[in-house]
Amino acid sequence: MSAKPTALVISAHAADFVWRCGGAIALHQELGYEVTVACLSFGERGDSARLWKEGKSLDEVKAIRRAEAEAAAEALGVGDLRLLDLGDYPLRLDAGAQDQLVDIIRDVQPKWMMSHSRWDPYNTDHMNTTSFVLEARMIAQAWGHNPGEKVLGAPQLYLFEPHQTEQMGWKPDVFLDITPVWDKKRAAMECMNGQIHLWDYYTRVAQQRANHFKRNSGGQAGGRDCKYAEGFETIFPVCVDELA
Amino acid sequence: MSAKPTALVISAHAADFVWRCGGAIALHQELGYEVTVACLSFGERGDSARLWKEGKSLDEVKAIRRAEAEAAAEALGVGDLRLLDLGDYPLRLDAGAQDQLVDIIRDVQPKWMMSHSRWDPYNTDHMNTTSFVLEARMIAQAWGHNPGEKVLGAPQLYLFEPHQTEQMGWKPDVFLDITPVWDKKRAAMECMNGQIHLWDYYTRVAQQRANHFKRNSGGQAGGRDCKYAEGFETIFPVCVDELA
Amino acid sequence: MSAKPTALVISAHAADFVWRCGGAIALHQELGYEVTVACLSFGERGDSARLWKEGKSLDEVKAIRRAEAEAAAEALGVGDLRLLDLGDYPLRLDAGAQDQLVDIIRDVQPKWMMSHSRWDPYNTDHMNTTSFVLEARMIAQAWGHNPGEKVLGAPQLYLFEPHQTEQMGWKPDVFLDITPVWDKKRAAMECMNGQIHLWDYYTRVAQQRANHFKRNSGGQAGGRDCKYAEGFETIFPVCVDELA
Amino acid sequence: MSAKPTALVISAHAADFVWRCGGAIALHQELGYEVTVACLSFGERGDSARLWKEGKSLDEVKAIRRAEAEAAAEALGVGDLRLLDLGDYPLRLDAGAQDQLVDIIRDVQPKWMMSHSRWDPYNTDHMNTTSFVLEARMIAQAWGHNPGEKVLGAPQLYLFEPHQTEQMGWKPDVFLDITPVWDKKRAAMECMNGQIHLWDYYTRVAQQRANHFKRNSGGQAGGRDCKYAEGFETIFPVCVDELA
Amino acid sequence: MSAKPTALVISAHAADFVWRCGGAIALHQELGYEVTVACLSFGERGDSARLWKEGKSLDEVKAIRRAEAEAAAEALGVGDLRLLDLGDYPLRLDAGAQDQLVDIIRDVQPKWMMSHSRWDPYNTDHMNTTSFVLEARMIAQAWGHNPGEKVLGAPQLYLFEPHQTEQMGWKPDVFLDITPVWDKKRAAMECMNGQIHLWDYYTRVAQQRANHFKRNSGGQAGGRDCKYAEGFETIFPVCVDELA
Amino acid sequence: MSAKPTALVISAHAADFVWRCGGAIALHQELGYEVTVACLSFGERGDSARLWKEGKSLDEVKAIRRAEAEAAAEALGVGDLRLLDLGDYPLRLDAGAQDQLVDIIRDVQPKWMMSHSRWDPYNTDHMNTTSFVLEARMIAQAWGHNPGEKVLGAPQLYLFEPHQTEQMGWKPDVFLDITPVWDKKRAAMECMNGQIHLWDYYTRVAQQRANHFKRNSGGQAGGRDCKYAEGFETIFPVCVDELA
Repeated sequence: MSAKPTALVISAHAADFVWRCGGAIALHQELGYEVTVACLSFGERGDSARLWKEGKSLDEVKAIRRAEAEAAAEALGVGDLRLLDLGDYPLRLDAGAQDQLVDIIRDVQPKWMMSHSRWDPYNTDHMNTTSFVLEARMIAQAWGHNPGEKVLGAPQLYLFEPHQTEQMGWKPDVFLDITPVWDKKRAAMECMNGQIHLWDYYTRVAQQRANHFKRNSGGQAGGRDCKYAEGFETIFPVCVDELA
Repeated sequence: MSAKPTALVISAHAADFVWRCGGAIALHQELGYEVTVACLSFGERGDSARLWKEGKSLDEVKAIRRAEAEAAAEALGVGDLRLLDLGDYPLRLDAGAQDQLVDIIRDVQPKWMMSHSRWDPYNTDHMNTTSFVLEARMIAQAWGHNPGEKVLGAPQLYLFEPHQTEQMGWKPDVFLDITPVWDKKRAAMECMNGQIHLWDYYTRVAQQRANHFKRNSGGQAGGRDCKYAEGFETIFPVCVDELA
Repeated sequence: MSAKPTALVISAHAADFVWRCGGAIALHQELGYEVTVACLSFGERGDSARLWKEGKSLDEVKAIRRAEAEAAAEALGVGDLRLLDLGDYPLRLDAGAQDQLVDIIRDVQPKWMMSHSRWDPYNTDHMNTTSFVLEARMIAQAWGHNPGEKVLGAPQLYLFEPHQTEQMGWKPDVFLDITPVWDKKRAAMECMNGQIHLWDYYTRVAQQRANHFKRNSGGQAGGRDCKYAEGFETIFPVCVDELA
Repeated sequence: MSAKPTALVISAHAADFVWRCGGAIALHQELGYEVTVACLSFGERGDSARLWKEGKSLDEVKAIRRAEAEAAAEALGVGDLRLLDLGDYPLRLDAGAQDQLVDIIRDVQPKWMMSHSRWDPYNTDHMNTTSFVLEARMIAQAWGHNPGEKVLGAPQLYLFEPHQTEQMGWKPDVFLDITPVWDKKRAAMECMNGQIHLWDYYTRVAQQRANHFKRNSGGQAGGRDCKYAEGFETIFPVCVDELA
Repeated sequence: MSAKPTALVISAHAADFVWRCGGAIALHQELGYEVTVACLSFGERGDSARLWKEGKSLDEVKAIRRAEAEAAAEALGVGDLRLLDLGDYPLRLDAGAQDQLVDIIRDVQPKWMMSHSRWDPYNTDHMNTTSFVLEARMIAQAWGHNPGEKVLGAPQLYLFEPHQTEQMGWKPDVFLDITPVWDKKRAAMECMNGQIHLWDYYTRVAQQRANHFKRNSGGQAGGRDCKYAEGFETIFPVCVDELA
Repeated sequence: MSAKPTALVISAHAADFVWRCGGAIALHQELGYEVTVACLSFGERGDSARLWKEGKSLDEVKAIRRAEAEAAAEALGVGDLRLLDLGDYPLRLDAGAQDQLVDIIRDVQPKWMMSHSRWDPYNTDHMNTTSFVLEARMIAQAWGHNPGEKVLGAPQLYLFEPHQTEQMGWKPDVFLDITPVWDKKRAAMECMNGQIHLWDYYTRVAQQRANHFKRNSGGQAGGRDCKYAEGFETIFPVCVDELA
């Protein structure tokens, strides 16, 4: 456990953390956080069409995807990347995997956690990850699980932006300005050589979210400028001493 | 418009602001805000059963309810109480009333606004107020409405806690610690002589919300103490520079 | 106000009470209730296509529809039919109409009330009626509205079955066995000469709901027989001394 | 009523039809439809911030907005533009306005209709328009409304894309390829001189929707190309002879 | 994989495909499709009360249900019936079963797929089947799953009509006219000797859906006739070149 | 199977049945029911923080929790307490556990069943229990599961009150007056020595629900008194011969 504030991102496949919350990761690294990224799989079977078309073997695909994830993490300033290699399409989220994730959560003691949307009919790995994360969060809070370890508090679980948000029933209630770290996010995206068509797609997502940021912070009547943003949905209520 | 930060609470009936957000009002007054409370009616017909049973006339009921509202506002430290006297059960929310509310919004230029839940089958005055407030907020933002006046930015609209929350589909996503001002809220509630049965009811509400505050801020694993709290639902996303 | 238990059905157009709750009306009349049926309009413009195709005038259409409604009410055993003649497509639900309905509610002092579904994109008269009824129910409960009159208690509001239930978001949570009064409901439906195609349609509805009645009362494993039923959605929770 | 197939778009403010369904309009004009665009207002008060900042009068603002709407309609190939001038922020949707819209619907006899989302807390004019359109559609179907006129059938009501879709609870279930008419939509957008910041915003929307079009038509596994698209939500079920 | 267009129906228990989409199957067979029906189980334990009451053994029940399913498939014109025999009440949907279904999907390469509703508190086999189908659809799309096989495109998943639709939260958005093949559906239903009470029940369902078909295609104002129909809910958006 | 009416409560952890439905249990025991309480686990790991802080071993914690559950059951008058010891945080709900629960259901033949809410992001054991119960209820109804045993009818499944109801999407539709047995519920709660902070919390819950009981039974206009109540949500519709 770090002396710095910490955060934990759980990504079903290796590239999800880049497209969906690369800005949040880079920004919090700059703010002094230690952000841990846990990738449950490399996305080797389902997110690597180009490599399979080229005739690569499973080991080759995984090696290439691993290298991309490591490069992207570096671009974002992430020092702690955990690659669990649980297999994908479908993820094998068994009791052993659960223990691994609970151990990571307890080790990191995150101030906040982040993962996928609750519903995704296109990609059940995504929504299964969220269920899996909620279960692990509960276990990590239990005093009787591995007694003697430090138990987890009550960190927020943010849900990052899925593809085709409306189909997933995902509704952002927090917008984060990522303008200061945009170059890092773009660089991280460009590490994903098999998904070049997504570089511009997610650049546009960030531009649209910046528009929403300005709308909701009063941009039309004099609000701050913001060129790139990310949106998140919260699961749990927030506790405050003053209303914003 | 005040040099202080400002806030605006819109209450369908005179006592709603006391039960539902008296803590938030008193706390923000202590934090240096100028909080304006706009009561659309005195709750003279629908919230004053005891007075009617005693045989009071409409004018008498209104005078008594006005005095109670003024006393409660004073107990909460509110200097700006606006009593619109639009009639209740039902509220008469016509174009003239709309102009009045838009004028108040523009005059106050609130940092945040607060009103009722979106659905209330028990009390349609409550949900009609929320629709009315959203419409007025929109008008206040329009550059072409009374050109020359300062237009409204994009303040949050908080929805305070209704009676029987689950029936109203109201889900709190913000808990506010009101422990420091609890005595003021209790004193304000005790100004409502016709609704004595609600004093303890809303005291218990505040105690339950304090429990929720602690749960969501990590209370079981070492969170801060909190004895009284209020819950609110937000309508609009929030814009931040760091995730909490 | 009757010495018998009473009930109040509010029907947007003259025939709605027949198709949607004719069984409940006839059954409760037989159980000793006095059921009041209030029709806000005759359905003269929107539910009378055949008459208009025949070249009837507005007055003729209204007279015919009035006669049908009276005949149907008689077939169901209803002694108290109130025809408000507020116009249809759209209903004109103004302050005067509201006063009329509140007066009826207070006069009847219903043990339960019944009206349309909350949402109906095909027929906005239906959903507007439900909003109108909720508002009137609230006013009828207010001690300060026409002080001296007996105020309303807290009767359930049942929502009867709309056409195309799934499109209306209507979900029945109560099934009522109307087998004993089926002949009366069928007879009442056959009073509606302009909508012959609906006689068999709503007969089938009753048969399907009887199947659901049996499923939910344990019909597959020995439940009671039931040949015709009606379904209703409740708005308010029920209060009991024993769980069923 | 045209011999061509017809369609009817109802736009709360003058520019909404451009951003939200300009592609659908231009495409159906090319497909041989006669598309009627009815603008309930010019958006003179609420959507014209720049003009008010420049000190224009109400009449000047309306004239400028009218000219922009006419130019945009021409760019899209629309011959039938109806400007109802009902006032905006808020729209005054009274009985007279309702009669106007019903007359237009009956005159046009649209194969399909299109309007705003059902919920919009940022802009109540938008959601009020949709309620107003549903009510007018119902009236237009009534044989007893202006007897002798041709009554309306049962056209679909499409809901075009609002700003900040997730906040509006809007979920697209139809994507339309507008690549062939993209230049017309862009040209129409460029007629809106007071909202230059939206030109690129809605260009990006169309690019993102093209991505979704390809995903849902099998784009990753060999689907057709599509560079620009628009999304719509349907209110009513569709009736088919073969499943797609 | 057929040269004809193909479709794939996944049925939890042997008879589900008959009641819920027998018309769609027969119709598409007549339209030149090759429809594959995959039954995950025979419904031997949970849908065969009569046989168990008669004292049949498990093997006998399965043999009888198999024969009924084969007869029904033949009546509908289905050449490709796959009986997976995974056990029922509950279905055993393990990794092996998943591989079987993915193989079928890839083998069939369906233009569209069809299965149960998303929620069914009465019958968890039904909703578990839908989750299982969504997961298998995702795997079948993955280039890295059994590389070298033809991957799946993006077929629609239709959800056929459950029993007690409102309790399942199922909302039909497509109605299909099955009048031309009604005799085949009725004949298929009559192959189900253990569930005679459902023959008329599902005949009435088809008649009611025909009424809805006509309502939504403009039947009251001159739409086409339709005597029997089936309703379906779609999961994914549709992609079109013209709005209907 | 008892000659008395029976009921079955399924509790994820040993103490849940006390806080959430101790009143319903005690009341129905007094009404002559035999209520069976099945605890899937002791809540040994997740609900026993104090014991772990004191350094107890797993066996000690389980023994203490077992004793508390037995004492609470006795305080409530429950004679049939079944402790399944499936482990907690997470519950291990495998096929063997399922068989155990189905056997209990068939043995008890409950008139009604009761368990947790459908959604609980704080505690996935709770929502997993509800899924597990629905599946077991279905199996218990299947004639082919352990043929020869008496199959289950169609009992209601009540969902008792979760912590932080609004976050769970739980909406009570039945309130039960537990005033006559309040002392028993309080005594049962006081058996839970490790969760003293919850004694007053759930006392306040009962007081608030009593207020809701009175509101919904007409308390403001003369309804019965009620000092303590519990709320429940139903899953299935109810079947009646008269509307309440």
